[in-house]
Amino acid sequence: MTLELSESGAVFVLLSILLIPLAIAGLALIHTGLGRSRNAGHMMMSCLCVVGVAAGTYFICGFAWQGVSGGTAHIARLGGRDWNWLAAQPAFFRGVEMNGSPASLTVWMQMLSVVLAAFIPLGSAAERWRLGPLCASAALLAGVTYPVFAHWVWGGGWLAQLGVSYGLGHGFVDAGGSATIQTVGGLTALAMAWIMGPRRGKYTSEGMPTAIPGHHAVFVLFGCLMAWAGWLGLNSAGAALFTGMAPRRAVLVALNTTLAAGSAALMTVLVTRVRFGKPDASLAANGWVAGLAASSAGCAFVPPAAAALIGLIAGLLVPFAIETLELRLSIDDPGGAISVHAIGGIWGILALGLFERFPAPVLNTADDPARLTSLSGAGQGLAQVIGVATLIGFVLPLTYGLNWLLNRWLPHRVSQEGERQGLDMHELGAGAYPDFMTHTDEFFQR
Amino acid sequence: MTLELSESGAVFVLLSILLIPLAIAGLALIHTGLGRSRNAGHMMMSCLCVVGVAAGTYFICGFAWQGVSGGTAHIARLGGRDWNWLAAQPAFFRGVEMNGSPASLTVWMQMLSVVLAAFIPLGSAAERWRLGPLCASAALLAGVTYPVFAHWVWGGGWLAQLGVSYGLGHGFVDAGGSATIQTVGGLTALAMAWIMGPRRGKYTSEGMPTAIPGHHAVFVLFGCLMAWAGWLGLNSAGAALFTGMAPRRAVLVALNTTLAAGSAALMTVLVTRVRFGKPDASLAANGWVAGLAASSAGCAFVPPAAAALIGLIAGLLVPFAIETLELRLSIDDPGGAISVHAIGGIWGILALGLFERFPAPVLNTADDPARLTSLSGAGQGLAQVIGVATLIGFVLPLTYGLNWLLNRWLPHRVSQEGERQGLDMHELGAGAYPDFMTHTDEFFQR
Amino acid sequence: MTLELSESGAVFVLLSILLIPLAIAGLALIHTGLGRSRNAGHMMMSCLCVVGVAAGTYFICGFAWQGVSGGTAHIARLGGRDWNWLAAQPAFFRGVEMNGSPASLTVWMQMLSVVLAAFIPLGSAAERWRLGPLCASAALLAGVTYPVFAHWVWGGGWLAQLGVSYGLGHGFVDAGGSATIQTVGGLTALAMAWIMGPRRGKYTSEGMPTAIPGHHAVFVLFGCLMAWAGWLGLNSAGAALFTGMAPRRAVLVALNTTLAAGSAALMTVLVTRVRFGKPDASLAANGWVAGLAASSAGCAFVPPAAAALIGLIAGLLVPFAIETLELRLSIDDPGGAISVHAIGGIWGILALGLFERFPAPVLNTADDPARLTSLSGAGQGLAQVIGVATLIGFVLPLTYGLNWLLNRWLPHRVSQEGERQGLDMHELGAGAYPDFMTHTDEFFQR
Repeated sequence: MTLELSESGAVFVLLSILLIPLAIAGLALIHTGLGRSRNAGHMMMSCLCVVGVAAGTYFICGFAWQGVSGGTAHIARLGGRDWNWLAAQPAFFRGVEMNGSPASLTVWMQMLSVVLAAFIPLGSAAERWRLGPLCASAALLAGVTYPVFAHWVWGGGWLAQLGVSYGLGHGFVDAGGSATIQTVGGLTALAMAWIMGPRRGKYTSEGMPTAIPGHHAVFVLFGCLMAWAGWLGLNSAGAALFTGMAPRRAVLVALNTTLAAGSAALMTVLVTRVRFGKPDASLAANGWVAGLAASSAGCAFVPPAAAALIGLIAGLLVPFAIETLELRLSIDDPGGAISVHAIGGIWGILALGLFERFPAPVLNTADDPARLTSLSGAGQGLAQVIGVATLIGFVLPLTYGLNWLLNRWLPHRVSQEGERQGLDMHELGAGAYPDFMTHTDEFFQR
Repeated sequence: MTLELSESGAVFVLLSILLIPLAIAGLALIHTGLGRSRNAGHMMMSCLCVVGVAAGTYFICGFAWQGVSGGTAHIARLGGRDWNWLAAQPAFFRGVEMNGSPASLTVWMQMLSVVLAAFIPLGSAAERWRLGPLCASAALLAGVTYPVFAHWVWGGGWLAQLGVSYGLGHGFVDAGGSATIQTVGGLTALAMAWIMGPRRGKYTSEGMPTAIPGHHAVFVLFGCLMAWAGWLGLNSAGAALFTGMAPRRAVLVALNTTLAAGSAALMTVLVTRVRFGKPDASLAANGWVAGLAASSAGCAFVPPAAAALIGLIAGLLVPFAIETLELRLSIDDPGGAISVHAIGGIWGILALGLFERFPAPVLNTADDPARLTSLSGAGQGLAQVIGVATLIGFVLPLTYGLNWLLNRWLPHRVSQEGERQGLDMHELGAGAYPDFMTHTDEFFQR
Repeated sequence: MTLELSESGAVFVLLSILLIPLAIAGLALIHTGLGRSRNAGHMMMSCLCVVGVAAGTYFICGFAWQGVSGGTAHIARLGGRDWNWLAAQPAFFRGVEMNGSPASLTVWMQMLSVVLAAFIPLGSAAERWRLGPLCASAALLAGVTYPVFAHWVWGGGWLAQLGVSYGLGHGFVDAGGSATIQTVGGLTALAMAWIMGPRRGKYTSEGMPTAIPGHHAVFVLFGCLMAWAGWLGLNSAGAALFTGMAPRRAVLVALNTTLAAGSAALMTVLVTRVRFGKPDASLAANGWVAGLAASSAGCAFVPPAAAALIGLIAGLLVPFAIETLELRLSIDDPGGAISVHAIGGIWGILALGLFERFPAPVLNTADDPARLTSLSGAGQGLAQVIGVATLIGFVLPLTYGLNWLLNRWLPHRVSQEGERQGLDMHELGAGAYPDFMTHTDEFFQR
């Protein structure tokens, strides 16, 4: 089925997309607040540069490889079946008429989604990532990793066609980007944390982690509220563009997104209260964003109670995931980006399989209405699992490999001296808060 | 009359509602900035938790009791007339199809409105309210107080029907929530300030108040700008959903909201300049928000000049109200929430009666067009006064009683030691700004 | 041609305008962060007051002189041709029905645009401008300077008619306000910097500038992201209202705005990296906003690659412009407002002449379709140059003269003692960050 948008439908999608910069701004604040004051200006600068780099790269070549459902694509013939593996569109958005057509709206939304995905690794590699390499890494994400996987899901690729080709439900479904944005970004965050290693002073010589608190709880929590506003637009626009949801049903998307975020934060508050005696503000923020990340895949296809449940489980997973990474796997993720976006995102992908209640044919499969009556939930669940397996089995090695190669040519990590001094002074030559007196020497001894 | 929305009308309302999280984020920043730095993280955490609790409670049972105009309701027969006093909808939003219908848009807008109302008491009880009880109190507001009164105004209840039943103008009219959101929240703020008593050190042993300045003027004033953006959506959506305003007339709503806020802030600047020699930034922020609160009721039904006048008077009332509460009544309201939202809101309700110029039948009464020709302004004014009397005579005792009972079971107030230490350390175990050096000992001696 | 908007078109424009407050909030944060902490509260207060003053003045008389295309106007007969020089509308928006008509949307959008323009001089005259005179100056801008020039461009005045009257392309075209908002504001910023002179301690007795770093890089860079969100609405609404762009084509506007901002920031990062050894965060922020300012004029009429190029050149111009003003011309502009908004804006105006590719007749000239076939790019370029000449030759002297006269009656500049103490304490009686310890004595010795 090709997506048809009425004029008011196009207006709705266009304006929903205009809210996504709020999610971008919110994530920037969260990352900044979760780091120390000596890296605050550098983190915001990194975010600003990544907007330019990721959007620019996506413009140059990213979209050409992602494409749109039904567009020109490279197709391989494997085992008697077509395997749609890469789009073949012209570069620089040529060939897309900018007139509010679904293709043009996809271009515009994707340019922002790719920025959002490219922001996520900034959280896990924070406080030690140099500006040049992080821009190069964002270009790799926006130019290669993201478009390839997004083609498979949103561009009519083989994951989207699992339903039509192999009878697995509606194929892999991801309305708002739990997979394409959150998990792709989160797995890249994991790759970066591996490549970079932990921050100086994070682990004692015995391997015990020490707490390095973020410097600004207000930025972090205010960023959560901004991210929520942006996510409402993100999920609505994604559901309309990539699953063919009627714009008027966005009211369900909005309710679900809100319930998922709120219940996730409350659950994290409860878990940290029970385990540590006091609720933890940074973890609550992580829980909130994990709820948002988990809400995206199924936002248009689950009833509100299921959305609340998805949030509760996301909020339960996050503190344990963070603890496991930090204690067991010795992975230093200052922003919690891996747990929030990869674990939250994967949970959201799978939750769609558990709770989906499709109200109407979705875009991927609607050209085959006869088949829809015989759909089983198990098939949909399997499609979602295949998507997750692809993320872990293909996207993670790909993004690790690309960034590992980049590291050989352009080392990601700042010098020891620079890390101690803080990236603000070292890389930008100026602190973010020159008028304020700070406890800068606290972590220097280690 | 039942509300009919064209597809573009539904899109308009849906997208307007998507701006309300900006008002929520703005209020959170205002509350945080008006408190001291040792409570900043706690205030933002409270806000995040209240989003989850209020939205969740409203989902579980709140909406069931608020309902929509024309929906199922409990009706008592009193003195020969029907008295529509409570909706009788199923819980968990069941029975509302999430398809952009007016009912579904109401559900979505109300879930955010109830969060906004539940934020207001956080301002007056700031710096001494424990996280657990404040979540419970938000649940009471979202589950009982708000839905009952909102049913009367927006759900087809008896206040809405004052026009049809008793010939009082169009019945009680409140387009954007001066009564249902602002005054309900503001009166709960008053109840909480009474129940909690003033902060340690606020009053000397002779009963003289001391100034405890907020810690972050930039957050407060930036929060005002964010709140404005959110209010534009709030007033537009409310006017369309609850009075049947044609979406295209939202341009008047936007102009009026802006003029009210701007003129209110300027008036407060002028008043504080004349009285204290220098304009006061915190009070100017309070004036601005009071202008917003007062603008809501009549935003679609007054000409721009009247909106500016409503703002000027709101900006005049606020500093005097704040002074009266603090000096005469010994009520300690750190965020000025009572004066801003209750006084500002009540003024907005009454101002509609003074300045209303209804351009077209509003929703409550439009099924009786013949009657409309004989409407007198006095009847409308009386309906508005009855609404205010109900707020003071019924909602205030109700919200006081509920929170008083809660206090017996779960004390609202933090321990003396916790208050001295700051809620960030005491309840969350971490300061909001660990890298910055602060003057923390300043108020400890008292 | 008169603009016709479908219902969904009107909804689109109305909602796009609702994003402009985000640009206003973003600029406020940028100005605040680029100043020192002792002036932070004062800057935010100035912004809040300017919203009230500029919107109010525009309501009282500004719009009456700006008017709308095709409305009543004063027309002089010069050299055998009509010269439409001033609108003649009633004051207080009377005569404009607030029903979503293009005229009413223009009123609403312009009320926010004039606030944006009035914010710009706050950047160049920061840290030394008294609150009273800056409000009066904002009133002059909103009541005189802005409406007169905006009438010429957007109200059917002689610049708009250069195409019809003299065959110069489509006449002067400025979709989103590179001229009317950015350059008018930026030239007023220049006038104010001249009138006020540099800050104490900015120049040594030998005339060498010293660096006075802004106090909050996070506010500045977060403000950039907010400004971007607002600009998406600003450019979309302007292009639809003032050039007749079909709302669905706003997707091109959004892409172009984003590419211009991102590429401008990257170019500034590169330039400062090459010249100073390290990228500069404040200048990168200035570059970003200059990219936004330059994007406005042609946002709907250039292909994305040209938008990226416009941004790159804006990002190249800004650091050199700032250096030239500071070093060669001894103009102290703490916020970089002159370079960002005037230089960026003028570049945007001219860039439209260089890169324009009009997809359809624009509003100014569409009543003459026969003529459109014979249009040459040179004519359009000349029209743009005439606009720039008018800005420099007429608007700059006008705004300088008005503010110079105002200075005689109400001196703009704060006393030496007040400047040293900081405007927060001096004018508002309270610091913005009373809980935080600051290095306040740093600049006192000079």
